This record gives sequence, C-alpha cells and structure tokens, in this order.
Amino acid sequence: MPQTLQSLIAGRWHGKEAATPLYNALNNSVIYHTHAEAIDFSEAVTYARKTGVPALMKLDFQQRAQRLKALALYLMERKEELYKISHLTGATRADSWVDVEGGIGTLFAYASMGSRELPSSNVLHEGPAMALGKRGGFAGTHILVPRGGLAVHINAFNFPIWGLLEKFAPTFLAAMPCIGKPATATSYLTEAVVRMIHESGLMPDGALQLVIGSTGDLLDRLTGADVVTFTGSADTAAKLRANRNLIANSIPFAAEADSLNCAILAPDVTPDDAEFDLFVKEVAREMTGKAGQKCTAIRRIIVPRNRVDAVAERLRERLAKVTVGDPSVEGVRMGALASKDQQRDVAERVAMLAQGNEIVFGERDGFKPVGEGVHDGAFFSPTLLLCRNASSNDAVHDVEAFGPVSTMMTYDGIDEALELAARGKGSLVSTLVTKDPKTAAYAVPVAAASHGRVHILDKEASVDSTGHGSPLPQLKHGGPGRAGGGEELGGIRAVRHFLQRSAVQGSPTMLAAVTGEYVRGAVVNESDVHPFRKYFEDLQMGDSLLTHRRTVSEADIVNFGGISGDYFYMHFDEIAAKDTQFGKRIAHGYFVLSAAAGLFVSPAPGPVLANYGLDNLRFITPVAIGDTIRARLTCKRKVDRNRTDDQGRGQGVVAWDVQVTNQNDELVASYDILTLVMKKS
Amino acid sequence: MPQTLQSLIAGRWHGKEAATPLYNALNNSVIYHTHAEAIDFSEAVTYARKTGVPALMKLDFQQRAQRLKALALYLMERKEELYKISHLTGATRADSWVDVEGGIGTLFAYASMGSRELPSSNVLHEGPAMALGKRGGFAGTHILVPRGGLAVHINAFNFPIWGLLEKFAPTFLAAMPCIGKPATATSYLTEAVVRMIHESGLMPDGALQLVIGSTGDLLDRLTGADVVTFTGSADTAAKLRANRNLIANSIPFAAEADSLNCAILAPDVTPDDAEFDLFVKEVAREMTGKAGQKCTAIRRIIVPRNRVDAVAERLRERLAKVTVGDPSVEGVRMGALASKDQQRDVAERVAMLAQGNEIVFGERDGFKPVGEGVHDGAFFSPTLLLCRNASSNDAVHDVEAFGPVSTMMTYDGIDEALELAARGKGSLVSTLVTKDPKTAAYAVPVAAASHGRVHILDKEASVDSTGHGSPLPQLKHGGPGRAGGGEELGGIRAVRHFLQRSAVQGSPTMLAAVTGEYVRGAVVNESDVHPFRKYFEDLQMGDSLLTHRRTVSEADIVNFGGISGDYFYMHFDEIAAKDTQFGKRIAHGYFVLSAAAGLFVSPAPGPVLANYGLDNLRFITPVAIGDTIRARLTCKRKVDRNRTDDQGRGQGVVAWDVQVTNQNDELVASYDILTLVMKKS
Repeated sequence: MPQTLQSLIAGRWHGKEAATPLYNALNNSVIYHTHAEAIDFSEAVTYARKTGVPALMKLDFQQRAQRLKALALYLMERKEELYKISHLTGATRADSWVDVEGGIGTLFAYASMGSRELPSSNVLHEGPAMALGKRGGFAGTHILVPRGGLAVHINAFNFPIWGLLEKFAPTFLAAMPCIGKPATATSYLTEAVVRMIHESGLMPDGALQLVIGSTGDLLDRLTGADVVTFTGSADTAAKLRANRNLIANSIPFAAEADSLNCAILAPDVTPDDAEFDLFVKEVAREMTGKAGQKCTAIRRIIVPRNRVDAVAERLRERLAKVTVGDPSVEGVRMGALASKDQQRDVAERVAMLAQGNEIVFGERDGFKPVGEGVHDGAFFSPTLLLCRNASSNDAVHDVEAFGPVSTMMTYDGIDEALELAARGKGSLVSTLVTKDPKTAAYAVPVAAASHGRVHILDKEASVDSTGHGSPLPQLKHGGPGRAGGGEELGGIRAVRHFLQRSAVQGSPTMLAAVTGEYVRGAVVNESDVHPFRKYFEDLQMGDSLLTHRRTVSEADIVNFGGISGDYFYMHFDEIAAKDTQFGKRIAHGYFVLSAAAGLFVSPAPGPVLANYGLDNLRFITPVAIGDTIRARLTCKRKVDRNRTDDQGRGQGVVAWDVQVTNQNDELVASYDILTLVMKKS
Repeated sequence: MPQTLQSLIAGRWHGKEAATPLYNALNNSVIYHTHAEAIDFSEAVTYARKTGVPALMKLDFQQRAQRLKALALYLMERKEELYKISHLTGATRADSWVDVEGGIGTLFAYASMGSRELPSSNVLHEGPAMALGKRGGFAGTHILVPRGGLAVHINAFNFPIWGLLEKFAPTFLAAMPCIGKPATATSYLTEAVVRMIHESGLMPDGALQLVIGSTGDLLDRLTGADVVTFTGSADTAAKLRANRNLIANSIPFAAEADSLNCAILAPDVTPDDAEFDLFVKEVAREMTGKAGQKCTAIRRIIVPRNRVDAVAERLRERLAKVTVGDPSVEGVRMGALASKDQQRDVAERVAMLAQGNEIVFGERDGFKPVGEGVHDGAFFSPTLLLCRNASSNDAVHDVEAFGPVSTMMTYDGIDEALELAARGKGSLVSTLVTKDPKTAAYAVPVAAASHGRVHILDKEASVDSTGHGSPLPQLKHGGPGRAGGGEELGGIRAVRHFLQRSAVQGSPTMLAAVTGEYVRGAVVNESDVHPFRKYFEDLQMGDSLLTHRRTVSEADIVNFGGISGDYFYMHFDEIAAKDTQFGKRIAHGYFVLSAAAGLFVSPAPGPVLANYGLDNLRFITPVAIGDTIRARLTCKRKVDRNRTDDQGRGQGVVAWDVQVTNQNDELVASYDILTLVMKKS
C-alpha cells in the first residue's frame, strides 16, 4: 500500500490519513499519498521562533559551518537511498546526481565558505570602520546580524533535494530556522532527505521543519523578521509576492522563476571550429538533461542566419541518438517528465510554439519510450523548433515548455542576437559560444543586464566547464524580471542576503566592542606580556604593543638595496630623487615593512606559528634618512575555526593591526598581518 | 499671482494652467499651484530609455562621478536661492541646511566615493575570479552592470531637495535615468533644484525628469530593467508595492518608510553622568528639529523606570525653552509643520497616543507661535507623553505622530528595553546612550536585528557625533519591516543596489576580457619593453614580465636578519626550526617580497611614479636555503580617475598582479601592488 507522507512540525512527524495521491513518473502508479491532517502553522511558526532561533543562536557562525559539514558527511553516506527514490521521479542517474550529490555538495560548499569567511561570533563585521568626525571620537561601520526570524522556502518539483538544501545551507548559517515546502508532486523525495536530517541529530531543534501539502495560512503568520523564498513558475511567484501580509510587513520575498534562457552562437564560429561542436553538444545536453525540466535549460537557440541549417542538422543527428525511457534500462539517456500533468502542459505549450514555426525534430505519434510497463509514463520526445522571424514573434520569447523543448532562431549581427536574448525579459542564464575575447567583452556586459549568469564557452573553457545549466554554490543563481529578481547562492553573499545589515555609529571603543574587531582610536590594552607570547585563548582583541624606535640611516637604504637588488632611483639617485614629489631620497617601502617586523617580532618559539599573509598595506608618509620609526601592533580580530594542525594542536586565526609612525607621530605605513596562533589546549 | 509649477518631461518644461494650490506653511497663503495639464508618461519613459540610457552609457563610472562633482559645485554656489524657498516650508535655517546642503553634500560624497571605488568603464568587477575546474580552463566571477532601465524616485514632503539628490546620486552613477516625483505639498522646492540642475547643462539629456502632481500610469509602464524607490508612509509603500505591474515583472521596489524610532538610556547612566545630559539633549533636538518631521525622529524614549522622572523633568525644562514660530524671527528654534493637513493629522495622532498616557509637556490652548501673521500657520507645540505600561500598550509602538511628538516609556532591565525597541516592528534607527562597551556589545547586535542603524552615544562620541537623526552617505539608511525594508545610501553599496549583478563563467582569458581585469591563467602579453616603462595610455591589462631568477642563500637570510632586526627562530634557530611544520629554517617572507621587488624593479626614472600599496599578500610555499625564485608581474587593472598631479601631469592608478614562484613552479607568494603611472599627455 502506498505510504502516507508526513510533515515535520515542531519536532514531530504529523500525518496518518492518506489524501492526494502521488505518482511514479515512469508508469503512473500511485506510490505515495500526502497526509490529510491539517497543519497547525501557528505551532510551526512558534516553534521556529521560540525553539529554533534560540537553539541556532547558541552556536556561532563557525560552529554552524561545522554542523553543516557534519550533516553533509552524514547524508553523503546515505546517498544511495536517495538515488533509489529519485528514480521514481523519472530521473536518470545523471539527473539524480545533480539533485542528490549536487544538493549535498552545496552543504559542503557552504560549510567550507562559512568556515573560511565568517567570524566565530554572531556579528559579521562589514568594515572597514570609517572616521565620521575630525576629532577621532566618532566612527561608523556596518554589521550583519541574524534577523531573529524564520525562513519559509517554497520549492519546485524538479530538484526536491537540491532545491531545499541550497536554500537551507545559507539560512542555517544565518541562524534562521527553516520551514521547507516542496512541490507536492515530488515531495516524497524531500521528505526522505528531511527524515535523514532529522534522524542525524546534527541539527539544533527547530532548525528545519517540513510541510507536505499546502502552506495554508503560513505566510499570513510571518513578520518583518522573516523571509520567504520561492522557486517555481512566474505566475505563482507573482501570486505569492502579492500576499497582503508580505507586503504590509516588507517581508523579503526572493523568487527564482523559470525563464526563457538562451544560448548564442557568435558570428565568429564556423562549422569547422571545435566551438561549433561545443555549441551543438551543450544545447542537446541542456534539452535532454532532466528531460529539460530545469529552470536554467536552454529554451532559445540563437544562431547566425547563415549557420542555422548546419546547426539544425547537427542537432537533429544528436537528438535522434537519445534513447528515451526507463532510466534503469541500459542505454537510456533521457527519462520521463515528473508527472502526467507536466506531460499535458508541455504538449500544450509545444502546440503554441509550433504555430507559424517549423518542427525540426520531435516524434509525436509513434514515440515509444523503452522499458517495461512504461506506456503510461510521463515521457516526452525531445522537440526542436525553428523560428525564422524571432524579432517579430512574441511566443518564442514568452512561452516556456518545461520539458525537452527548445526553439532555434536566427539573427543578423551580434546586436540583434543580444536584442533577442533580452526579449526573454530577464533570464537566469545565457551561454555565449565564441572564440573571440573581443566579442565576449562586448556582448557579455550587455547580456548581463538581463541575465543572472552568463556562461562563455570556448575550447579552452570546455575542458573544465560545468555547463550552461548548473548553478554553482560560488556563483549567483537568479535573474531579473521574468526570472523573479531574486538572488540565491553566489558564495557568502547568499548568507548575507538572510542577515540584517545595520549601520553602527559611535566611538571607536564602542564600535570595537560591538564588532569584535579593533577599530583605530579604540582603547587598547597594554601589558608586560608581548601579545605574540599569548595563546589564542588568552589573547584579547585590543591587546597592543608599542615598540621601541629605530632611526633610519643612509646605511639602511644602501644595505637594503644590496640585499633586495632594488636600486630604484627614488632610493639611490640623489639627482633624480630631487625631481620627485618627495624632493629627496626615501627609504624602500619594503624596508619599512621589514624593519617594523624587526621591531615587533618576538624571536623565541611561541604561540604565533606563522605570518601567512598581509592585507591593505598603504604607504602614507615617506621615510627619509634620519627619520625615526616605531610600530604599534594591536590584536584586531580573532577567528576560532575550531581547527587543529597536523599534530592535533588547536589553533586560531589572528589578524593584527599594524601602524608604523615616524618621529612626528605621522602614519608612515598601515596594514593588517594575518597569523596562526596556537591554543593552550 | 502664485506661480504654476512645471514638470520636466523629455527635456521640456510642461504645464501652464493652475491646478492644486500649495501653501506657505507659516501663514497658509497660496504660494504655488501644480499644473493642470496631464503628463504623457509614455513620452517620459521613452525619453529615459531611448535618450537617457544611451547618453549616460556614453560616460563611464569615473566620468559620471566627475559630472556629479561639477553639479554639486554648481548647486553649492546657488544654495541661498534654495534656502529662501525652503523658508516657505516652515523650516528653520538649520532644518533647511539638512535639506539643501545635506542634499548637495550627498552629491559631493557620491562623486568622491565613485571616483575612489569605481572603474573607468561600465563594468564593475566584483571579484576575485575563482577557478572552477582542475585544469585551469574554467573560472567564474561576478560583474555588476547598468540595468539599462530607468529609476522612478517617489519622495516625501519633508526633504524636497535631499530626498531627490540622495537617490539621484547613486542612480546617476549607475547610469540610470531618473524620474523624480516629489510629494506635492513641497514640490516647489524640488522644482527649484531640478530647474538649476537642468540649467547647469552638466547632466546628459534624459538623466533627470521631474513629475509635479500624480504619477498617473507611470508605474504600469515600467519593466524588469527599471527600479522604483519610495520614501513616505508605510501605507503608501504597501499600496505601491502591490502594483500589479511591479509584481508581475519583479521590478525592484525599495521603500523607506516612517518608523517608530527609539532612544534607549542604558541602566548604567546616572543623572550625574555627562551621558544623561547627552541623552536629554539628543531627544529634545530630535523632537524639535524640522518640527519633528523626520522619518528618523525619536518617537519612543525608553528609560529605566528609576530614571523616568529625572528624564521627564529635564526634558520639560528643555522643551519649555524652545521658541516656536516664524524662523525668520530672531531666537525662533522651531518652525511650522509643512501644511495644515499635517497639523490636523498630528493632532489626531497625539489624541490617540494620549489615551491612557500622561502628557508631560505640550501646550494645547494658548499655544502661540511668534512672528507676524502666523496665526494661521501650521504650527504645533512640542509634545512629550509618558506611558508607564509600554509592554502592554500597542499604540505607543504603532501610532506615529509625524511632528514634534515623542513618548517616554519605562523598562526594567536591558532585555525589556530591547523588547520595547523591537515592538516598533522594524525601524530606521535607534540610539543607545551608555558608558559601558559591554552593554553596547550585548545590546547593539540585538537592536540591529530590527533597526537599519544604531547610534551609540557617550561622552567620547559626543565631540563628533552627527546625531541620531542624520542619515549619512557612507552609512546605510533604511530599516526592516515597518521601515520599508529598503536600503539607501551606505557608500558604494547604494550604487550596487541599482546595478545588475551577473555571474560570469568562462576561460580566464574570456573573464579578463569581460571584466577588464587580468585573471590568472589568461593569456598575457610579453614584449621587449618592461611594463614599468610604459605610460598609462600604452599599458594594457595583461602586459606581463617574467623576471630573471635568484637563488636564495643562507647569507640572504643572515643579511636580511641584520638589516631588519627580525631574528625569528624560524629563520635563525636550526634547532627550533626542526620542530616546525617546515622542518627547517626558511627565508623571511618580507625578504621574498623585497627580493621580488628587486627582480622586477626598473631602476631609472620612468612612468611609474610610486608604489603606494599592496593587497592580498599570501605566503603560500616557504622558501628554503637553496631555493630559486622568480616573479611574474602582470598589469591587472587600470583606472583612469581623470586626475593630474601637482604639476598638472596626468596619471592613472595601475594594480599589478605579482606571483613569486620557486624552481618547481610552486607559488611562493601572491599579491597585488598598487602604483600611480604617468600619462603621456
């Protein structure tokens, strides 16, 4: 008997009685039911606020990143269970890889980016702080903090795992409890992964809830601290965005909607070029991968008028070789659409697109997927259309058949190609295939104005290209206009989107206390212990050393020239140096840097393991012969990444503010140095 | 006869026939009329798209920043005309300063930030580029480009000049033509400044249009490339946000709405502290400045229960000294509300707030503003209320009287204070007055979750503080929830908000061409001419030098220790160095840096004027005795800020990518250096 799916609300699984049936895409048999019991969304929201938020806020950014990594490892060990269920959606192994391992991979990626880029606190300083007055008493900066609310993620049917995880990862890092609401048709796969997450015990209580079925009055219960994300059709996006409560409370609503993505073959590519084949291959792959059910799939194939027949010919050949059927059958390259509803919908839209256009490829009658008992499955033949008057045809730019369907169109000159691309009114992604960097330099910024991502493909890129259709955790996913206007992924940006940015103004001492980062002008702590001799735990932001002094002599310049080999005229040519802005010879900047290190170094072995980098160095006042310099070294920022070295000793990252001044207390050089500092334990 | 205001549409002033009368706030006499003629918004939008966008795109970011500066200078010379008109709004000179010079100052600030931070092209690279494959053929990054659309700025009545200019500045830099729509009541002042801008001839055609009166069907004509900003009431914000066209096309809508901002007196401050006086002064100033008609004004005064009487007493004294009347009369400290409508509205809301609460200060009957013929002006007495049960009172957190009106409320413990602050459901700004950095560190991140800006005030900050109520160009303006959820200002962020972010993927060579910035792995240009010997105009991104080699000896380490004074054990202690991760002595990192400079320096005087900084230095592989290093120096980025030095010679900023490698081609050190390079002309 088909199983009844359950919602995870307030830490408990709800639902026994069967309601809506869900179908196997391959044979249309009933495999699951949604549950009939209503969800108490008041309970869900209260649980997120009262249990989820405090539990998440007990951890800091770094600790949440660690949890995310542990979760990714846990799920990766169990991926085969997910592949098994994913087969029911009509997906091939390759399609499922994107959903299953792509989703888990996104958790890994966010764990790693979080660990690399986020602080070990719950205040993300978006500096630098800047002086706001002349007397040094007042400064300003920005912080990003958890919003204290929850995130509702409403997802599409095509990627039931990735769709949830790619949103869960950044919201989790941002300390937002999530309520996930997958599209019902494939919600059984989301339920399976949420069950694993729940069973892992790795997530704080309330971090994740799951809604099977309708969202009921959930959106009406949200406040300005919450956020809603949506992936799906533009129509549904518009409906949700118009929700009165979302509007009344300025609740952020981030939409990622299907769009009429395109691939452009640039005029410089001839049928003899490797790039011509790359173009054909990429288009065919995007048409048939996931049976074309990707919001990033290529719907419009924009080719020079004089190449259209060659492209059509090669595409036809490729598509003819794609075996469609049950992916468990050897040799099957394309599976089914997700449901019979989708099959009907795609057929209707193909009919709309076909009006006045040619069908270059596409079997209607006589189309027979391979496999046992699949005659009632939701299969659809790859279908290629050709529109010869795309500039005056609206449908090809507006009607999306969410299946293995794409329309070729022709252009004369790159500007027309770009105009056609923009006719999509905002898309997630476009691919430009060209050999010519100048063409890319011209076309990409134009395309970028209406596309969330632009993929440039040539022979050089092809060896590593992740392809037109794949959003990556590091890169923004989401486009303007029809594509919904939202931004997902894109590195730590995605976490920032879920945090609240606030400007902070006050004295440097107050800003340092709030941001956890030393701000120049703030009170420092000077003690008899050299800061480089303190272990990570003992070191405090603001611990500071004002060094002894050193008078710079001509001998220093001469010796430094000798050892570095840097005989630049400003240091060595008395005659030419007179004509510079300084009017005389000055010491090497790198000498100043080296001498400063000599002033603040603590030579014996100690907790500071390595100086691995330096940032924001600015040479401000030149150092002349006879000038006397000293340095102030102040602990600026500590990040505990909860890491140990090869020998199992704990260590943390410490950034130091360095100011080198001269005898007149003028700033000579200013920079941060980055060190690894040992822990006591 | 009162003048009829005109709209500036498609480069021409429209309107002759008088329609709605506008009144002098001080005496209610009719001073202007709006025009009766309907505006053709189709013409306005087409003009922005077809004339404005191309004209703005002919300039690059740097050139637009220059224009902005020229415009600011032009307006500053004419500021007195604006002050004169501003008087009619009921504003004092100090109030008008915020609007007039604050507005012009924002242009200066954006000109300066644009020049400092934006490229001399129309592609803003948001790097760094990152490798997306193992074979080096594929990389990804982000660019921000002009959207190709227009910006509609709908503004409030209180700051008719600043309100337009603070939005115009970032949109102009972002190459968006603007259509400004001021609130009708004070639109005469906006018209005056737009007339000056138009007459200056400094702006490209179509950069700015002005709507006097209603926006008609303007919003219905926008597309996903456009943006709408709004400043005003939360109700109007909600109405506009629900516009079907905005929703259907995901048109970004940024709202900045009035909010119930607060000031918190922390528990550590006693009546004997300087901070106590600062608190009282700040509150009184915010209540009476601009007659309390600021969206940032303090509406809720949150004080410890045991301090409320002392605060009330001091505030009463201060408010009693505020002379209200015609600002042209000597000694007048507070002017009128902007209109009789506002006067009625504020009175109604005070009545709502007064229910169940005490009125601590506020003259009703017998309130007489000073000045000639002002008996019919829109004056309102400063009014201070006291609510002793704020945790159970909704009105004091919800009802905003947009005038010189504020409500005191009491708390027990900082957590209750923060809960009361959050009851505003999202505000623009809060002030925390405290002496204690620990209190700030605890309270500010909590307050930040529901406030767009947090102002910390103590004695140290007070010498320079710009005050609770003043948004600054460098800091974010806008808060979540009730405050509208928008972000304005905040430095170059504000420009980024108006650009379209797109991920770009491709080979390093393609990414370099698109971003205008060298990406590692891209094709480089090597020639016989040392890149340091090329003038700014001749130098091309990608020009590169691979230096000769240098074998590092023990003598180098010894000599470098001698000159720098850096005798760190890793370089000098054979015994301790054995126990490090490297297992042996290694060369100083700063030696490697200095030796690299020695390898690529071109000693004779030449076009490179100075190396003024260094960024992103990372030491990757240690250099041991006997290792042989070399450097690759590549022109990474050129920025033409259209500047000349003291002697009138042109120069530009050039960033160089430096890679130091060893005999195994392993990367030893990686960094960027920043130089000034002379122009030929």
